[in-house]
Amino acid sequence: MDAAQEAQKREAFRHLVLNALERRLFFIPSFKIYRGVAGLYDYGPPGCAVKANVLAFWRQHFVLEENMLEVDCPCVTPEVVLKASGHVDKFTDLMVKDEKTGACYRADHLLKDYCKEKLEKDPKLSEEKAAELKHVLAVLDDLSSEELGAKIKEYGITAPDTKNSLSDPYPFNLMFQTSIGPSGASTGYMRPETAQGIFVNFKDLYYYNGNKLPFAAAQIGQAFRNEISPRQGLLRVREFTLAEIEHFVDPDDKSHPKFAEVSKLEFLMFPREDQVSGRQARRIVIGEAVSQGIVNNETLGYFIGRVYLFLTLLGIDKDRLRFRQHLANEMAHYAADCWDAEIECSYGWIECVGIADRSAYDLHAHTDKSRVELVAHEKYAEPKEVEKLVITPIKKDLGLAFKGNQKMVVEALLSMEEKEAMELKATLEEKLEAEFRVCTLDKVVTIKKNMVSISKEIKKEHQRTFTPSVIEPSFGIGRIIYCLYEHSFYTRASKDGDELLNVFRFPPLVAPIKCTVFPLVQNQQYEEVAKSIARSLTAVGISYKIDITGTSIGKRYARTDELGVPFAITVDSTTSVTVRERDSKQQIRVDVDKVSSLMKEVTDGVSTWPDVLWKYPTHSS
Amino acid sequence: MDAAQEAQKREAFRHLVLNALERRLFFIPSFKIYRGVAGLYDYGPPGCAVKANVLAFWRQHFVLEENMLEVDCPCVTPEVVLKASGHVDKFTDLMVKDEKTGACYRADHLLKDYCKEKLEKDPKLSEEKAAELKHVLAVLDDLSSEELGAKIKEYGITAPDTKNSLSDPYPFNLMFQTSIGPSGASTGYMRPETAQGIFVNFKDLYYYNGNKLPFAAAQIGQAFRNEISPRQGLLRVREFTLAEIEHFVDPDDKSHPKFAEVSKLEFLMFPREDQVSGRQARRIVIGEAVSQGIVNNETLGYFIGRVYLFLTLLGIDKDRLRFRQHLANEMAHYAADCWDAEIECSYGWIECVGIADRSAYDLHAHTDKSRVELVAHEKYAEPKEVEKLVITPIKKDLGLAFKGNQKMVVEALLSMEEKEAMELKATLEEKLEAEFRVCTLDKVVTIKKNMVSISKEIKKEHQRTFTPSVIEPSFGIGRIIYCLYEHSFYTRASKDGDELLNVFRFPPLVAPIKCTVFPLVQNQQYEEVAKSIARSLTAVGISYKIDITGTSIGKRYARTDELGVPFAITVDSTTSVTVRERDSKQQIRVDVDKVSSLMKEVTDGVSTWPDVLWKYPTHSS
Repeated sequence: MDAAQEAQKREAFRHLVLNALERRLFFIPSFKIYRGVAGLYDYGPPGCAVKANVLAFWRQHFVLEENMLEVDCPCVTPEVVLKASGHVDKFTDLMVKDEKTGACYRADHLLKDYCKEKLEKDPKLSEEKAAELKHVLAVLDDLSSEELGAKIKEYGITAPDTKNSLSDPYPFNLMFQTSIGPSGASTGYMRPETAQGIFVNFKDLYYYNGNKLPFAAAQIGQAFRNEISPRQGLLRVREFTLAEIEHFVDPDDKSHPKFAEVSKLEFLMFPREDQVSGRQARRIVIGEAVSQGIVNNETLGYFIGRVYLFLTLLGIDKDRLRFRQHLANEMAHYAADCWDAEIECSYGWIECVGIADRSAYDLHAHTDKSRVELVAHEKYAEPKEVEKLVITPIKKDLGLAFKGNQKMVVEALLSMEEKEAMELKATLEEKLEAEFRVCTLDKVVTIKKNMVSISKEIKKEHQRTFTPSVIEPSFGIGRIIYCLYEHSFYTRASKDGDELLNVFRFPPLVAPIKCTVFPLVQNQQYEEVAKSIARSLTAVGISYKIDITGTSIGKRYARTDELGVPFAITVDSTTSVTVRERDSKQQIRVDVDKVSSLMKEVTDGVSTWPDVLWKYPTHSS
Repeated sequence: MDAAQEAQKREAFRHLVLNALERRLFFIPSFKIYRGVAGLYDYGPPGCAVKANVLAFWRQHFVLEENMLEVDCPCVTPEVVLKASGHVDKFTDLMVKDEKTGACYRADHLLKDYCKEKLEKDPKLSEEKAAELKHVLAVLDDLSSEELGAKIKEYGITAPDTKNSLSDPYPFNLMFQTSIGPSGASTGYMRPETAQGIFVNFKDLYYYNGNKLPFAAAQIGQAFRNEISPRQGLLRVREFTLAEIEHFVDPDDKSHPKFAEVSKLEFLMFPREDQVSGRQARRIVIGEAVSQGIVNNETLGYFIGRVYLFLTLLGIDKDRLRFRQHLANEMAHYAADCWDAEIECSYGWIECVGIADRSAYDLHAHTDKSRVELVAHEKYAEPKEVEKLVITPIKKDLGLAFKGNQKMVVEALLSMEEKEAMELKATLEEKLEAEFRVCTLDKVVTIKKNMVSISKEIKKEHQRTFTPSVIEPSFGIGRIIYCLYEHSFYTRASKDGDELLNVFRFPPLVAPIKCTVFPLVQNQQYEEVAKSIARSLTAVGISYKIDITGTSIGKRYARTDELGVPFAITVDSTTSVTVRERDSKQQIRVDVDKVSSLMKEVTDGVSTWPDVLWKYPTHSS
């Protein structure tokens, strides 16, 4: 199969999945009766249930398991916070405008489309030109505004809808802007991520944790991104749910006490070097990846392992999941290491979870802006003797010499680094005076020996003060769910072979509805039994769907297989019922009064279907 | 105790609660290191856990119990939706501006403050004047913009901060406004409620429910309100979580199949008539309130009963909870009936849940704006014969007479109501022609008998088409949680009587952490046992706090009582442990390997503490 056929097949598959998802209201284009808004989608009833299940499992698997401190901060965020984080200045995409209509496009998208179109559909393309276009596609993410603009001009790319000429590319900030309070004086934004709400609370959370490291804080919530022109359906949206963890750790000790619990896991990894040298992702044991230095540290490795478990337990196919390391040019300058959990779906390999060691960047940034020290302390078992630089400006003599400028000179002297200070000391001792640059005055002054005393002293220190590093696993919940839909979807022939039926093979953990209750035929006795089973399911907290219509049992199965309901309870007697498993279609007979606890057992994950299968008589219909 | 003392006592209590809540990070003023933003608060770790528990119980108690269709829609909402709902035009508060500095104030707040201050602190106030000010306070919510402005002028009220004069009051829209997409052409707002997302999906949800009524849809999510100047701390905030239910029902049949399950509940109700005649809230059986017509219909009554159960199961004191009916002037013109669940706290009686019969208003509004029919159908068992008006314009004759205006005349004829049509028919039969006003032409034309045929015919109808009524219970989750904090808080003397200790008496359902695990003394064996108990608690999904510091057991109890942890497990042997209940301080001895399942039992609500108390040996420390 060539690339074009492959692409066609993938699109056909996606079309099938999306069709089932939209018809069964897993999702609904938001505000559909008003013709919708690009990049906004609702979760309809089964989608909303899947999302709630994924989030509940996320809480169990991460927050509860690691005793994380979960917080819940507002979406509306004042400008100062996002100025400190860098979002106000840098959270942008490059945009071009149709010079006549003003319609907006993402500059890189237009260039990408042009290159792909040429490569796929222009038979007269020279080999040389093809190589050039391929190169452009490869470096697309690295192009500067000027380079993008030059390429667009060079290739004569015009606005796709009108063929009008385009403006030069310029940065468009992707945050939704608003105004807090009635005066219009206070700019706010809808948060582009949930992480900042954790960083600004570091001090309180550290205190809550008994002033001990490491600890992790977590947050689940909405985030917003005012995309220039959303594409890729459910994957690139303007509002989405993030689940983020900020694990704070001593930069000098990034070991993890529970690393042994994941260290033997083996899965597809795609280290930086393999990417650069054109190799494929390969299976690596995470413990070895850490010991070989492929993954920067144990804590990062621990979270990679936990993310692998999380995703595969949800039902993501482990052969279509890889951990890809960021290339040097992808990674923020401050990051120590960064891995994306990428899931393969019909759109290609999609980043669904980012796991980054962000070093001390975020806490530093907020310390600088807020002037509140976001630091941790480590008490020494015994006080340590430390050599410390001591600079003592002699204010009297400085005052006589510099008068009104004294304060600036003093500050400049105090802010000297060790090397500079020791050089000044040497000069003063040798020549009794020295030239000294005061930045805040923008001039060089003469310092005399009597104006400052510089020495090194041995001091006792009781604790070390440092800014913790942050390891951040950040989950795009909507993307994970979409990939889960694709990985769970299959079709099978109906009993009579006339049609292909859709099935979602969700594990019980994820399934929006855990079981159905069907009276085999319309009859009051069976209906009573069905209703009493329904009541006992509600009592144990199992979601179900009851269907007392006279529709044929096969049709009822088909309808609920398409919702991914794992178990069907058919009431065909007043004392026992038939329970059918969705994928194997195996059936067992269970007493009426035991069926709800059985359902609880298999949906809570206490038992699996194979576990219970041999305990009950099988049933063949 | 007089009113002033009462108020002082309430404030002192509130101060005590808020102090404990903030110190233990139940809440944190958002963006605190940047000096915060009025009206924005974070839920810190225990607050976040309480919120998650309240929402999980809400899902169990409403969504699962009633098989509701839960949806999840974006916060970003295009203008057209909120234009249709009326929010763009009417979701406003009246504001005044300091004429020099531009500082903004809520007009009614300033007038209220002035009246209260005068009444409380002006000893020279005449009786006549006092009566006037009391009257102003009573009618405050009903004052028009002009009346408010006149009062402010009359009393010489100035800006509180500067004493500058104030502008006239004018409406300020409370929605956070933003722009969707990069062009700036598409206005959006952060939703002020979650309900609209459900209404616009009515058609799909009705279809999902098998085209059957009644059914309910539900949504939990953030809502936003750009308050002019937030007051009342955690009760009036700019971003909050709503949980809303829209129950769609046939307007001709608002009975509820499960009403009998709640009809015998008795609780404080405050019907409209009792309020008007100055009586107090009184205990009424909800079944009687419905049968006597105090509550408009069974479905409304059913939800009032379910809300009562929900709130009291969470731990709201039933004697400080009342259902207050809206007065005629409070209620939207379209509403059939409306009751607020009000909870008494230190701020007074606070509206926490609104339960309204909104009739067909919302679906009508979106049908009008979107031109998509949001209606339901009821199939008749047998077709019904219905007399129908039939108007048949004779196009040929109309065309000859009106040429280019023919279309407008035809439309005007077809849009006649029955009465007008029958009058026209009578006139035409008598006089062979008639004057007829065509609005779209803005003139009166002459219609001749041959131009239109008007008759009544008997037609068979197979179904009835109608717009469903909506019963909407809408929960302010943050307000419920705040009231729960106040109702759960108490102090008791420490063992040595030296200090007052804070306790939150949260039921296990709500408690942020379900139990603690303490080794009695620092010793490796006990620590091992504590850790193995911790692991088994995680496995059954019970949140716990482990404390292996050597702090005295009394201090450890005090710390966790203040977090509302209901059970403490003290490891004082390697085979069995002591379990202490927070409020009674009763202790029992439980085997190490049974303690996690016991914890699961008492926190899941399968058993209560009194249930298990007699099963285990008691322990006295």
